[in-house]
Amino acid sequence: MNDQDSPRDDGFTRLVRSLPSTAPFVGPEALERASGRAFALRLGANESNFGPSPRARAAMRAAVERIEWYADPEAWDTRSAIAAHTGVGIQHIGIGAGIDDLLGQVVRLYLEPGSQVVASLGSYPTFGFHVAGFGGRIERIPYRNDRNDLDALAIAAQRTQASLVYLANPDNPSGSWSTGAEIAAFLDALPPQCVLLLDEAYLEFAPAEAQMPVDAANPRLVRFRTFSKAYGMAGARIGYLLAAPATVRALDKVRLHFGVNTIAHAGAQVALADQSYLAEVVAEVARGREEYAALAHDLGLVALPSATNFVTIDVGSVERARATVAALAAAGVFIRMPGAPPLDRCIRVTIGAASDRRAFTRILRELWPQIANQ
Amino acid sequence: MNDQDSPRDDGFTRLVRSLPSTAPFVGPEALERASGRAFALRLGANESNFGPSPRARAAMRAAVERIEWYADPEAWDTRSAIAAHTGVGIQHIGIGAGIDDLLGQVVRLYLEPGSQVVASLGSYPTFGFHVAGFGGRIERIPYRNDRNDLDALAIAAQRTQASLVYLANPDNPSGSWSTGAEIAAFLDALPPQCVLLLDEAYLEFAPAEAQMPVDAANPRLVRFRTFSKAYGMAGARIGYLLAAPATVRALDKVRLHFGVNTIAHAGAQVALADQSYLAEVVAEVARGREEYAALAHDLGLVALPSATNFVTIDVGSVERARATVAALAAAGVFIRMPGAPPLDRCIRVTIGAASDRRAFTRILRELWPQIANQ
Repeated sequence: MNDQDSPRDDGFTRLVRSLPSTAPFVGPEALERASGRAFALRLGANESNFGPSPRARAAMRAAVERIEWYADPEAWDTRSAIAAHTGVGIQHIGIGAGIDDLLGQVVRLYLEPGSQVVASLGSYPTFGFHVAGFGGRIERIPYRNDRNDLDALAIAAQRTQASLVYLANPDNPSGSWSTGAEIAAFLDALPPQCVLLLDEAYLEFAPAEAQMPVDAANPRLVRFRTFSKAYGMAGARIGYLLAAPATVRALDKVRLHFGVNTIAHAGAQVALADQSYLAEVVAEVARGREEYAALAHDLGLVALPSATNFVTIDVGSVERARATVAALAAAGVFIRMPGAPPLDRCIRVTIGAASDRRAFTRILRELWPQIANQ
Repeated sequence: MNDQDSPRDDGFTRLVRSLPSTAPFVGPEALERASGRAFALRLGANESNFGPSPRARAAMRAAVERIEWYADPEAWDTRSAIAAHTGVGIQHIGIGAGIDDLLGQVVRLYLEPGSQVVASLGSYPTFGFHVAGFGGRIERIPYRNDRNDLDALAIAAQRTQASLVYLANPDNPSGSWSTGAEIAAFLDALPPQCVLLLDEAYLEFAPAEAQMPVDAANPRLVRFRTFSKAYGMAGARIGYLLAAPATVRALDKVRLHFGVNTIAHAGAQVALADQSYLAEVVAEVARGREEYAALAHDLGLVALPSATNFVTIDVGSVERARATVAALAAAGVFIRMPGAPPLDRCIRVTIGAASDRRAFTRILRELWPQIANQ
């Protein structure tokens, strides 16, 4: 008998057996292994090819010299640096191996099996992965006018008496943003017990108006930030959350206390201190958004407004979006497209440094007539 | 109303509310912050002050240059390197941010709330942390003759119809080991549905007889290995497990697909390739075990036999063990002691490089008359 393929005898929980065998994302490396060709341009995961601050990079190289030591499980120095940067006390700050890790931890804090969650249809797949993984039920609300439909999300949260609502601001994959005032009103419109998980992975790229005032004492709001995007440290796996002290204390009951790499801590601390470098990256990304909007216009397409380091371009249909992703992949360019309607008529392209943007522009211009005529 | 301190209104799951507010370990950094003094010798967490292979260190420095890119979520290159090293297929290998992470994942695969688990009393606290965190019940079996009591563990597993049994071989905190044949017989004595979680964090330090033959197809055995100990990369957070393919596939349903640092992958791959460096570390640790046994003997104490990079020294009573830990801390030396009887009459000292061992020997010799007379 082959135990390992018998669903009744494997000993896994009912929940685990019920989960689909899908990962949130297929990495570009898997596509490269399948095709046998390496991508020349990696513009699909909103990584920053500007990289981290050179000072942060130097600090990470230096930290390799102490890789034999566990990092401080309380992450005191990193949390202190974040406290200084954000203006909230250290007791409001939780650290994890990126927002993915933190979302999983927070979902685990709140979701009983069968608990209800609300999120936008096609928003961050890893959030849905965690909700399913802890037995929650998710109601997905379509985007409206290519933006999060805050009214419909709040109505759904009320109707389902949701435990959690997930919102990314700025949003991925649309690139759109709401103002801090709109988010505050949205939070007020949620049921009294509902906790808003506000994913601010792209906040550094957004206009000031997108930032909600930090109300770190509010137990109904958990904000997620990362060093993976604007800070250019996706491979380091470090992010943080801002929340009420009771939430941070509860996370201590379930989180991996030794889950974050020593080098990531060192890099994050120095990256936060180099805000002038961050400002340069943000300014260059803003130039890139304009360039891609102009490129889209030249091709007869529309780039959605973006407050992130990517631009979502409407190519007219899901078929054409798939064809564009495939044609670019064949040309050595890794991009992704949104996974659900109405945004799946779009492609999503990360904004890299000027040389990457020129290369992408040249390749898309070359390929576009053929894609458009399919 | 202050929601954040109201246990009824916080929205956390019943399970989370039931968990104690304790972390598996207090880090030396927290002790340093409390005392206001840095430790001069860090011998409490079984880190390797030999550090990683110089080639692995160089690979990690080089990997900082690509820290802006996410690591491959399938960890193909790292798993391929482990496959070559262990002789099992890549489909048997799972990667995580250290054994802590992997234990949490595997516990989550198997434990329904109320499921029964068996482990030695005073064995790895992080395992118990995960069991509690997923609602399991743990029966703890005391050590016998300062070793895991395999007979009693198997009887308890049968009596409780345990879902999981945890065993570290070599063992922490006793330093003892069983032979591969003994472990195989132990596995046979467990109930048919019971999965053995075999923590081999210290296996590289152990005699060949401690290694159980790799039977990677057995769905009732999951083995855990790490780069934190002999490979000297505790701060990198990377470990692996060897298991049946169905187990590895099930982990894909719940694990963090982007949970391991790029630099950790790079270091692990090169560290595995430098087995001659590993052999040097292992030989030097063996010398250190002999030195510490001689030191204990000189002080009228007994060092327990160890197949690890630490030595557990019987100082006669829990009071004296606590006094020794405190006196060493006051002298700038971080060590720990086992947390439960009968081993809590011991201190546990990590074996570092020769200069560390000389310093520890000098300090303990100086302090011992005073501790012994308390």
